[in-house]
Amino acid sequence: MTLLGLLLAATAPVQQAAPPPAPLTVSRPRPTPLPVAVDAKVAALRDKALGDEVAWRITEGLTTEIGTRGTAGSAGQARAREWAVARLKSLGFRNVRIEPYDVPDAWERGAETAEVVSPFPQPLRLAALGNSGATPAGGLTGEVAYFASLNDLLLAPDSAVRGRIAFVSNTMLPTQDGSSYGSAGTARFVGPNVAAKKGAVAIVIRSIGTDHGRGPHTGTTNFEAGVRPIPAAALSVADAENLERMVARGRPVTLRLVLTPRIVGRRASGNVVAEVPGTDKDAGVVLIGGHLDSWELGTGAIDDASGLGITTAAAKLVMDAGRPRRTIRVVWFGDEEIGGVGGQAYARAHAGERHATASESDFGADKVWRFETHFADAAKPVGDRLAVALAPLGIVRGTGQAGDGTDIAPVIRTGVAGVDINQSGLRYFDVHHTPEDTLDRVDKDELRQNVAAWTAMLAIVANAPEEIGPVERR
Amino acid sequence: MTLLGLLLAATAPVQQAAPPPAPLTVSRPRPTPLPVAVDAKVAALRDKALGDEVAWRITEGLTTEIGTRGTAGSAGQARAREWAVARLKSLGFRNVRIEPYDVPDAWERGAETAEVVSPFPQPLRLAALGNSGATPAGGLTGEVAYFASLNDLLLAPDSAVRGRIAFVSNTMLPTQDGSSYGSAGTARFVGPNVAAKKGAVAIVIRSIGTDHGRGPHTGTTNFEAGVRPIPAAALSVADAENLERMVARGRPVTLRLVLTPRIVGRRASGNVVAEVPGTDKDAGVVLIGGHLDSWELGTGAIDDASGLGITTAAAKLVMDAGRPRRTIRVVWFGDEEIGGVGGQAYARAHAGERHATASESDFGADKVWRFETHFADAAKPVGDRLAVALAPLGIVRGTGQAGDGTDIAPVIRTGVAGVDINQSGLRYFDVHHTPEDTLDRVDKDELRQNVAAWTAMLAIVANAPEEIGPVERR
Repeated sequence: MTLLGLLLAATAPVQQAAPPPAPLTVSRPRPTPLPVAVDAKVAALRDKALGDEVAWRITEGLTTEIGTRGTAGSAGQARAREWAVARLKSLGFRNVRIEPYDVPDAWERGAETAEVVSPFPQPLRLAALGNSGATPAGGLTGEVAYFASLNDLLLAPDSAVRGRIAFVSNTMLPTQDGSSYGSAGTARFVGPNVAAKKGAVAIVIRSIGTDHGRGPHTGTTNFEAGVRPIPAAALSVADAENLERMVARGRPVTLRLVLTPRIVGRRASGNVVAEVPGTDKDAGVVLIGGHLDSWELGTGAIDDASGLGITTAAAKLVMDAGRPRRTIRVVWFGDEEIGGVGGQAYARAHAGERHATASESDFGADKVWRFETHFADAAKPVGDRLAVALAPLGIVRGTGQAGDGTDIAPVIRTGVAGVDINQSGLRYFDVHHTPEDTLDRVDKDELRQNVAAWTAMLAIVANAPEEIGPVERR
Repeated sequence: MTLLGLLLAATAPVQQAAPPPAPLTVSRPRPTPLPVAVDAKVAALRDKALGDEVAWRITEGLTTEIGTRGTAGSAGQARAREWAVARLKSLGFRNVRIEPYDVPDAWERGAETAEVVSPFPQPLRLAALGNSGATPAGGLTGEVAYFASLNDLLLAPDSAVRGRIAFVSNTMLPTQDGSSYGSAGTARFVGPNVAAKKGAVAIVIRSIGTDHGRGPHTGTTNFEAGVRPIPAAALSVADAENLERMVARGRPVTLRLVLTPRIVGRRASGNVVAEVPGTDKDAGVVLIGGHLDSWELGTGAIDDASGLGITTAAAKLVMDAGRPRRTIRVVWFGDEEIGGVGGQAYARAHAGERHATASESDFGADKVWRFETHFADAAKPVGDRLAVALAPLGIVRGTGQAGDGTDIAPVIRTGVAGVDINQSGLRYFDVHHTPEDTLDRVDKDELRQNVAAWTAMLAIVANAPEEIGPVERR
């Protein structure tokens, strides 16, 4: 998962001040008018989905037969696209195809090692951040300038950073809705840019993760135009905590970094598209999917093979139950991790087309706990039917505005309605973007609950007689 | 932890046969005669230990300021010995010294990478086993011969192994007493030797571990005299599971391995010794300790910085309470991981000396759940007093024969009595010998419960008026 727009967030330092007293508010979910009837066929299809095998086979197959797909137009993604086309055709989908596009400035991981030179010589584990600059091949040695948070780095005078290796720490606790990624993640999203502008020779951050393991959490960072990218890497949380303890002893700490990523230039890539044709060509497409690329460190099980499995399995269940009103389009997007390149290419290629809704599964496969919608007023009954159909799966209705997801964002921005099916994020950031993102992190029963939720949603949305969009974004 | 003698175990293949019906037996712990009075000073000291900071400071200090100590007379161990001498002196111990010895055939880890060449190209994570042979620098490519267990490898005809890379899988479930390490571990202890004799060009095993992560579990293996060591490595459990899934698809699987460890020859090393001098020189030494060396992958927190911390903290608490009857000797053994080289050197150096008891802490720092003894009959009341003193910590009395531990084994074999303080092994093999053996795996409160158990044990044993040994081993 990449949260778009967070690059813009929280770049102004916050001065310490007493917070205003919190207003006494109570979150009020919209009451569901009763009785709302949900078609018995929807309920039966939802319950049938609890025995689904398709999502598991896709997740198991991709992580076993392809393994990591890689990012940025990689060879692994190309193999995975061929795999996807064959699998989607064999499942009975129509119009299965690769929609090609180019990644303009592909970035490729290189060697990545680090060691404490003094006062406590020992290796540290880290991973370069996407778009990181490179050290000389022989490495770069520098003294650590420690900042307990991004805010501390922002407040620091340039003289405290210049010529040093910035080390930005962080705390991140698990949240069910994943919101702590947004706050903690700023150290990764903008920390390297800030450090580069202050003259740091490199930056290491504490991984944006909720674990305490040795697997570093990679992910992209971005440098403003005109700012020369410096070497930027995430230490595993355990290694960052160790480095913090060294810093706390009060003596200068010197690190040696070897990071040799490089920009390899333009590369061919593509999205894989499959369809369940609808009966009403004018009702708009129901767009669903996840992303095919994955960071090189793991095998991309929860990020995002499982999302592909869930959405594809749900579409197949609805397809096998009879032709829906709206065309369901399943997209296995490419190159999400480097900033949603596949999603942007999709939006360009389908700019003239009507989309009824867009939904993305890119948050693992733990149990779905909540759904949210962003519908036109005329479609309020659709939301009510969703609430009734999803409640037996233990899913509550949230009050936020749906439309979350890097790949669907360019479509959502054009005023397309959205449905979000939210998995629990309480374990997600233990392994997100790490070597530990492997098949064993996917619980088969929770995966099926996901498929059931998506199946019910698709059955209702794709067949709704109401007009669901367009919508205005607030 | 290394279990000695397991090399000899289970090397004969087991043919399938109906097991005999299990006899109806009930484990009967020896009843404690009541009332047994335990000195109020012992109870007070035990409870004081629940606020101990020394064990944590040693564990935190070693893992932070030294990090991995390495094995086989490494430079890290040499730094760690200096650190140990300074720390033990500053704590007030007497006769603090390094007792030097040589490691005759030191083995050093090299590069270690693996990839599936076909049919599903992708990298795999592994770590060479201690004493592994090397591949050519450019690597070795071979077809996988899969065996679900060591027994299957043992049963296989040589023709099924010759010229191939043996892949031996395994299952290992957590056990509180750690006994599953003995059974599952044989794949590592003897699997490479068996594969080499059958003509395999290399062997990879599923890590001997109870996790499903990407950190491989290393550890030593051994080749018989006259058997040329082949490259031998442990795949992380997640990678082994992935490779099993590939094998299950029925097509030949080809691996490429690069493993470049080497024998670096004789190296100087040493044990670090510290004492609490007793009042009665004839009563024998109470020998306690853990090991200073650690596998290179982690920082050796649970294996075995915590064991050093626990035993040292307990000895200090007893020392500070007044001079005990018996001399307590704390030994930070070197080179345990490669087969107890430091323990053997200790036994040689102290062969003429009387030891009253020997006890070792080398099983992490999770809560102690059991203690066991092996005492002379005259010392039965000592065991009863231990049972009473340890019960408030939630510790039960086991019926096994104490004396477990690689480092104390050579002393125990001479007929010295033993006390074992058993930590729970339910989490230990999740991280044992992996990169994940870091400080965050140590729970401060559970560590203190360990110190309290050891303190009570030492206070009772070091001051017991009874003769505790010698004993006969059954």
